[in-house]
Amino acid sequence: MSLYKVFFIMGVSGCGKSTIANLLSKELNIPFFDGDDYHPEKNIKKMTSGQALNDDDRQSWLETLNKLAQKQLIHNSCIIVCSALKEKYREILNRDISNKTNWIYLSGTFNQIKERINDREGHFMSSDLLQSQFDILEEPKDCLKVDINLSPENIVKKIKEELMNKSEFGLFGLGVMGKSLCRNLANNGFKISMFNRHIDAIEVDVAKKFKENYPELSNSLAFDDIAAFVNSLQEPRRIMLMVNAGKTIDYVIEDLLPHLSENDILIDGGNSNYLKTKERFDYLKTKNIHFIGAGVSGGEEGALKGPSIMPSGNENAYKEIKPFLETIAAKDKNDLPCCTYIGTEGSGHFVKMVHNGIEYVEMQLLAEVITIFQSLEYNPDEIANILESWKATTNSYLLEITVDILRKKEENDWLIHKIVDKAGNKGTGNWTTIAAAQLGVPNTMIASALFARYTSFFKEERTEASKNFEASSKSKPNISTEAISEAYQFARIINHYQGFRLIQQASENYNWNINLSELARIWTGGCIIKSDLMTDLVQVFKSQQNILNDETIKNQILKLKASVKNVVSECVLNEIAIPSLSESINFLHNFAKENSSANIIQAQRDYFGAHTYQRKDDPSGKFYHTQWK
Amino acid sequence: MSLYKVFFIMGVSGCGKSTIANLLSKELNIPFFDGDDYHPEKNIKKMTSGQALNDDDRQSWLETLNKLAQKQLIHNSCIIVCSALKEKYREILNRDISNKTNWIYLSGTFNQIKERINDREGHFMSSDLLQSQFDILEEPKDCLKVDINLSPENIVKKIKEELMNKSEFGLFGLGVMGKSLCRNLANNGFKISMFNRHIDAIEVDVAKKFKENYPELSNSLAFDDIAAFVNSLQEPRRIMLMVNAGKTIDYVIEDLLPHLSENDILIDGGNSNYLKTKERFDYLKTKNIHFIGAGVSGGEEGALKGPSIMPSGNENAYKEIKPFLETIAAKDKNDLPCCTYIGTEGSGHFVKMVHNGIEYVEMQLLAEVITIFQSLEYNPDEIANILESWKATTNSYLLEITVDILRKKEENDWLIHKIVDKAGNKGTGNWTTIAAAQLGVPNTMIASALFARYTSFFKEERTEASKNFEASSKSKPNISTEAISEAYQFARIINHYQGFRLIQQASENYNWNINLSELARIWTGGCIIKSDLMTDLVQVFKSQQNILNDETIKNQILKLKASVKNVVSECVLNEIAIPSLSESINFLHNFAKENSSANIIQAQRDYFGAHTYQRKDDPSGKFYHTQWK
Repeated sequence: MSLYKVFFIMGVSGCGKSTIANLLSKELNIPFFDGDDYHPEKNIKKMTSGQALNDDDRQSWLETLNKLAQKQLIHNSCIIVCSALKEKYREILNRDISNKTNWIYLSGTFNQIKERINDREGHFMSSDLLQSQFDILEEPKDCLKVDINLSPENIVKKIKEELMNKSEFGLFGLGVMGKSLCRNLANNGFKISMFNRHIDAIEVDVAKKFKENYPELSNSLAFDDIAAFVNSLQEPRRIMLMVNAGKTIDYVIEDLLPHLSENDILIDGGNSNYLKTKERFDYLKTKNIHFIGAGVSGGEEGALKGPSIMPSGNENAYKEIKPFLETIAAKDKNDLPCCTYIGTEGSGHFVKMVHNGIEYVEMQLLAEVITIFQSLEYNPDEIANILESWKATTNSYLLEITVDILRKKEENDWLIHKIVDKAGNKGTGNWTTIAAAQLGVPNTMIASALFARYTSFFKEERTEASKNFEASSKSKPNISTEAISEAYQFARIINHYQGFRLIQQASENYNWNINLSELARIWTGGCIIKSDLMTDLVQVFKSQQNILNDETIKNQILKLKASVKNVVSECVLNEIAIPSLSESINFLHNFAKENSSANIIQAQRDYFGAHTYQRKDDPSGKFYHTQWK
Repeated sequence: MSLYKVFFIMGVSGCGKSTIANLLSKELNIPFFDGDDYHPEKNIKKMTSGQALNDDDRQSWLETLNKLAQKQLIHNSCIIVCSALKEKYREILNRDISNKTNWIYLSGTFNQIKERINDREGHFMSSDLLQSQFDILEEPKDCLKVDINLSPENIVKKIKEELMNKSEFGLFGLGVMGKSLCRNLANNGFKISMFNRHIDAIEVDVAKKFKENYPELSNSLAFDDIAAFVNSLQEPRRIMLMVNAGKTIDYVIEDLLPHLSENDILIDGGNSNYLKTKERFDYLKTKNIHFIGAGVSGGEEGALKGPSIMPSGNENAYKEIKPFLETIAAKDKNDLPCCTYIGTEGSGHFVKMVHNGIEYVEMQLLAEVITIFQSLEYNPDEIANILESWKATTNSYLLEITVDILRKKEENDWLIHKIVDKAGNKGTGNWTTIAAAQLGVPNTMIASALFARYTSFFKEERTEASKNFEASSKSKPNISTEAISEAYQFARIINHYQGFRLIQQASENYNWNINLSELARIWTGGCIIKSDLMTDLVQVFKSQQNILNDETIKNQILKLKASVKNVVSECVLNEIAIPSLSESINFLHNFAKENSSANIIQAQRDYFGAHTYQRKDDPSGKFYHTQWK
């Protein structure tokens, strides 16, 4: 992808756009176009007759300039001069090329400009006309603002320094994900600065060496000095932190703070706890620094080729980084970016956390499905073939990679047989379970998948227990492949129901106004839990929040229920561990009960703790206490 | 119970014990005994011959004085004079009557006392002898320390004021639990002060009215003014807070602080979060105030007749309140108090939290058992009769009250049928689940019981779902009463395993050194989860931490396993909601697996996130990464 850029020079009449464009054009050796030369005939006529142009008149003209820019970008960079006073004019000019435009805004006061115009020989502009320009001027945010008090030479020098030598985007922390995002940004034509800390003999010249290894980074800047890194960035600075979640983020923020300026933007792209993100957001607000918590999913490959990105925080600050994030994000089936503003505070990290919780369950369900097939004495290749055939009905990224995993051989055995069965976890499944407990949402499946990983971790205790309790002779469960497939599909629906239900609850509690359909949409590409089901949910959430009320999903559940009952029951009888599959049907049985056994619990609580209870025959909701004995 | 007291007046020779005792005896109109008059013949001989007594000589003498005290207590209060310089002497004197003794320590410096002795006509004591007394003197902590510089009249006045008018123990907050604890303390002969806040027209004269309603409180003091309440207490003050957990505790602490003195002791008897208790402990340490987090279980009735108490914090501070807490606590089958020092920090509140988590599951299991019997078309009385018969094999407090609940009728229907099936919760089940997630322990059953309550709370969504998904025609599950009983017993064992496993993990992580056998012991009386199983666990934990390795329990599990498999499988097939019963067997199947499916999860994590894995054929534990595609 090319690194060509369009430099739009904008500002009110008389601010000196043409002069600067002319000088800059010579300095950079790129063509310069004056927007005024591209007006259509009818506009020229109107202006000649003394009439002012309206926005309709300007529409086609601005589109012409946009096309001009696009055409130039094929072969070179260029400069285009255009007053572009309103945001909506600039949106037209930016269309489809927002990641390749740089805005230079020549800024002066009314009096400055009036004086300057009147000083010019043969020029006169009425105060009224100039005032009308100031009236409609919407100062751009994402631009290089230059004071016209500087001499033209100094203005050009500053522009060169800022735009040609300074980077648009900074990436802090070059681990697996940070590196992939750098390459993604560079491949998309962004000029970036990259930073990695220096630790003697351990992390030395990380950024420089990384830059040398990838040709797409030739235009990027590499640093291991924080001050130099920050100074290499255009203002407002956009710095994405890709460091370990937890205390490290706070240390990094403190290290960066002395070098930052007002309105700079820090983006935390790690898996930070959403409550911490809110704390950091509030803290940085006191320093006039914006903080965007952005969940990023997709692993190494997603980060490189297009991840799913879930940014949150101040919406205006988000607009400053939107062109970058939306450009590097994965695209959905309609070619829209898998990146959307989620909401305020830590909502981005919240949904990323639940994304990972859903992912835990999806992984656990596949592991359980494989366990069942193993009990039926299929080998990994045979299981892979069966799972491969499931792609037609219930495909997902995780299903795909599991097929690859099952097929991977090493010498004469499957690699999977060599892997120690202790599952790691990095906190997000844990946090999802905690959030569910705190928000009062029964995310039974996420808890079961988390606890299955924890259980696996007690390898020594498990081995001991297996000697005591594992059945020595086992019969094959009476389950068909079709039933396993249906049980798996059923459990996935409940998993998605529970995950989105948790997000809905958090959105309600915290007033995040999360759009569940949009959220499902940005999870249809780039991320670990992308799947056909997720694609279906984009539509489902357009008409309701509770997917169990969707007619298609309801019918699926009714159709699949018999199979999951059969599978779970057979597995329990045959001592096959299926904690998450089992939770899926137990949840439905518990949830789809008009009259549950909770009346017993209320009676017990009232008996020993005088906690009181409500009565079915008193709709007022009054609380009663009984002397039970 | 009588309110008689023994006043021991102690201190080194020459401090004026007899003088004070004589005056006090006249003032209070109670007899006075000089300990020296009760030496046995052999001690008198030894002393006459100029030999010093050793501790063996003193043993029987001190026991005689203890018996004297016990005898006096039957009919009246009394004063006993005895130097009692060592803690172990005082322990003998206190034996069996520690809640009825008051220690008055006449304190002076070496020089003060030497001068005073030498001033007395006809008396002479060598410096050496006096020095030897000071050498062995262990100053008592729990005493009224009076400076001998005061005139005897003033000393007596101070003693009267402090001991006769001031209370030994303060209770702050007269809710259901606070009131019951007050009556319990008063019934046990303690002089207490009681406080409840004043809120115009809402909480007015709460303490005074409470006192008027119960004759056992006639000697207690009632307050709604904090300063007066605190000033009514002997120092070091012992104040038990029985207020709502959460921020209220912090507010109450701030309200009390200005009135407290160094070494005063606050006891938080509510269900506070253990991490908050640690924070408060640390904060109050900076103010030289002791903070004891004490879990209290037993509900209203337990608090009155003897709860189970789980205190934690500074062990020396605990000793100051031990006589009170251990006296009012329930007694186990060996008549030992169901109260023991748990450990430092918030360990007392931690174990109380897990106690409640275990309780959630015990309640949920009974609710599920009843659901199963309902599906077999038994009515509540019939179910009560069956559960009643289970007392022989698996009795518990919760089983007993559930029988009572099932039998409770109102007009022609069972009351249980009238109770709304939305289960409340007050946070401890929630916290237990969170602690499990944080500490990495798979407490699947506690999570399932918590989430079952949450699920019940979504009554409207449930009703909607029941229309969509609840089977219209139901067949009876093929389960015997015996199988249900065995499944219930099985699930209770797993529940207790998981609960104690969590405590063990916390104890390891935080270095609390919790004695699980002692903990089980104090849970055999007074508390909501007392049961025959708990009584068995006292012994089990004496030989190991993991109850699944106990031979008896192991055999029980093997015996019960077939039934729980049968019950869970039939319930799943017949759409009966049994989330906790189901978790119990799924946990065992998952846990008692030498080779689990976690290898699949590790492969997936390595595939998409390069998280690496360990290999079975490399015992070094090295981490590997594979290019899977």
